[in-house]
Amino acid sequence: MRQVAILGIGQTKIDEHWDKSLREIGGEAAFSALQDAGLEKVDALFVGNMLSSLVDGQNQLGTFFSDWIGLWKQEAVKMEAACASGGAAFRAALMAVASGDIDSALVLGVEKMTDKAGRDVTSALATAADADYEVEQGVSFVGINALVMRRYMHEFGWKHADFAPFSVNAHANALHNPYARLHEKITAEKFERSSVIASPINLLDASPIGDGAAAVIIVPAEKVARKPRIVVAGSASATDTIAVHGRKDPLFLNAAYLSSKRAYDMAGISFADLDVFELHDAFSIMAALSLEACGFAERGQGVRLGLDNEISITGRVPVCTRGGLKARGHPVGATGIYQIVEVIQQLRGECGLTQVDGAKIGMAQNIGGSGATILTHIFKAEGS
Amino acid sequence: MRQVAILGIGQTKIDEHWDKSLREIGGEAAFSALQDAGLEKVDALFVGNMLSSLVDGQNQLGTFFSDWIGLWKQEAVKMEAACASGGAAFRAALMAVASGDIDSALVLGVEKMTDKAGRDVTSALATAADADYEVEQGVSFVGINALVMRRYMHEFGWKHADFAPFSVNAHANALHNPYARLHEKITAEKFERSSVIASPINLLDASPIGDGAAAVIIVPAEKVARKPRIVVAGSASATDTIAVHGRKDPLFLNAAYLSSKRAYDMAGISFADLDVFELHDAFSIMAALSLEACGFAERGQGVRLGLDNEISITGRVPVCTRGGLKARGHPVGATGIYQIVEVIQQLRGECGLTQVDGAKIGMAQNIGGSGATILTHIFKAEGS
Repeated sequence: MRQVAILGIGQTKIDEHWDKSLREIGGEAAFSALQDAGLEKVDALFVGNMLSSLVDGQNQLGTFFSDWIGLWKQEAVKMEAACASGGAAFRAALMAVASGDIDSALVLGVEKMTDKAGRDVTSALATAADADYEVEQGVSFVGINALVMRRYMHEFGWKHADFAPFSVNAHANALHNPYARLHEKITAEKFERSSVIASPINLLDASPIGDGAAAVIIVPAEKVARKPRIVVAGSASATDTIAVHGRKDPLFLNAAYLSSKRAYDMAGISFADLDVFELHDAFSIMAALSLEACGFAERGQGVRLGLDNEISITGRVPVCTRGGLKARGHPVGATGIYQIVEVIQQLRGECGLTQVDGAKIGMAQNIGGSGATILTHIFKAEGS
Repeated sequence: MRQVAILGIGQTKIDEHWDKSLREIGGEAAFSALQDAGLEKVDALFVGNMLSSLVDGQNQLGTFFSDWIGLWKQEAVKMEAACASGGAAFRAALMAVASGDIDSALVLGVEKMTDKAGRDVTSALATAADADYEVEQGVSFVGINALVMRRYMHEFGWKHADFAPFSVNAHANALHNPYARLHEKITAEKFERSSVIASPINLLDASPIGDGAAAVIIVPAEKVARKPRIVVAGSASATDTIAVHGRKDPLFLNAAYLSSKRAYDMAGISFADLDVFELHDAFSIMAALSLEACGFAERGQGVRLGLDNEISITGRVPVCTRGGLKARGHPVGATGIYQIVEVIQQLRGECGLTQVDGAKIGMAQNIGGSGATILTHIFKAEGS
């Protein structure tokens, strides 16, 4: 399989874009990536989206966007893997370029979910869980995560306040990201005073939904002259049971373990070599579990990395450097591409006040459902 | 890109399976394909599905099925491209195996759409069209196809009765396919007397929806010892505008032309070399347009192939040899895989009374929307 590199990136600000259509949001990110790449056209378009059929009444989003952005005639398809739809679209595009069948691909993650007053986004998001055995019982998606967080606190003896550093760090970093949804510094005290949504999860444990789109253009590595050249060094996808109750251990993200292990092996690195890790902090508990599954902490000790200030820009494992899902925002099907765009910004050295000094290797990990589908991608900067 | 071959196939009967869940239908086809392949496990699962979020309240179908069929931990993802979802899933799987990143893939097309009394399948199917510029005007999916058929009849001087051979042929072939939804011989007279749905389309111009699943297992060609060895000789995807009114010529399936041309080139053949062509006859007008775009007839003359009996099992271009969408049935996201399974049955010589004598090269073409997304795959039998 031939080596693939990044030629361009683009993104929109995540917000409640009531004045922009699904088309316009996706187009903005796509055109921005094409401009960054210096291209007018690509061979194929891969779209990551979870909710457009439910919320926007629109399916066939691949062709919907190839039409809108002027990629007439080109191949186009949509991938859906709940909140991991973006990562899944990136991996499908990677396989197509790596196979040699196509020479360039635009990967677009897009979601518009805030202004459909007549639709219930909470029930739409619940389609990520097991309809027959979880949702049928009346549990929402945040409810499932609350059960996991409660069990984790019980099992390992943590207080709710111990999770504060994840959200505080994400909000602090988002202050310097113009594309982030939330620009508000928070403190550990504010975190603890926040309204409870599904105990023990409160408003500041949870990422905000939003409308947004992010895009990446990939080509064979030898086509990229730009320095540093950012190559895709590792890519893997793994799954777990769709329902959390089906797992041997509901407090271990086995699919994160498996996909990160395979991605490390492909890239020829260990977790300790990563300079930046854009993890999937849909809820603060998921940040802790991701750090554990990817090798940064023992089981039950992910929370410690926050308390010890290891997750900040100057820490051992900088996470959510542009705000993470928590503060950059979580337009579900687009999130996986935002994460990749942000890793690339770090490796290009474009992150200003939240730049990780000398970042050369970064990882983006995108989670669908409550740890059911997990995509891990590792990027390396060459010849800076 | 390395050569890929088929190791196994499976399918369920298409019907109103009110006694079986989405899980059960998909599992039946998947297990059948695994058994046919002599495998217990594959590296990855690619699911083609259009409507499960709308009709079944279930998203993340890749992992939903990897969990159900015991492919725990393995990679899994869902592709959606309206009625071309099956073909799109097959192509994504092909790219992944061809790249060398994975060594085996199960591709599952699945749809359950008949027993959700509270949901409107007509409006769910309309999500394949342009929500802003077609559906917003109140047109249904069959309505769009009726406009195309009316214009074709006007432009080229055909009567409605001239389309009868497509449906008569499909129903005749389905009689010998135990997996087909409809087992009813029809005549040209019955075709003309059928109830109008959206003039000029009547009930016998239109394919019936259904619950069903079909599956294919692919591996690198060198891993297949079975004779004949069926290899994927050509694969291509192309798109057109999502709304029919956006096209320069609404009576030409440009995406079928482009994707078949590219697939012919990859396979090193011309249309005349095909022994069997499983086309996408969602409506009889689409059969005529597909034959024209793929080289078998001049513009406006596709209908002639039916009238001249060229489309039957012994004709110049046998189509719908197992019943086509018209009589085998059209469980939308599964259809593309049924078509591929049927081509493989022909190349294996397993079709009994509808076997095309000495079939060596076959093509499956899967259409999403009204010609918006078109996937074409060509298969060759080697060493029979």
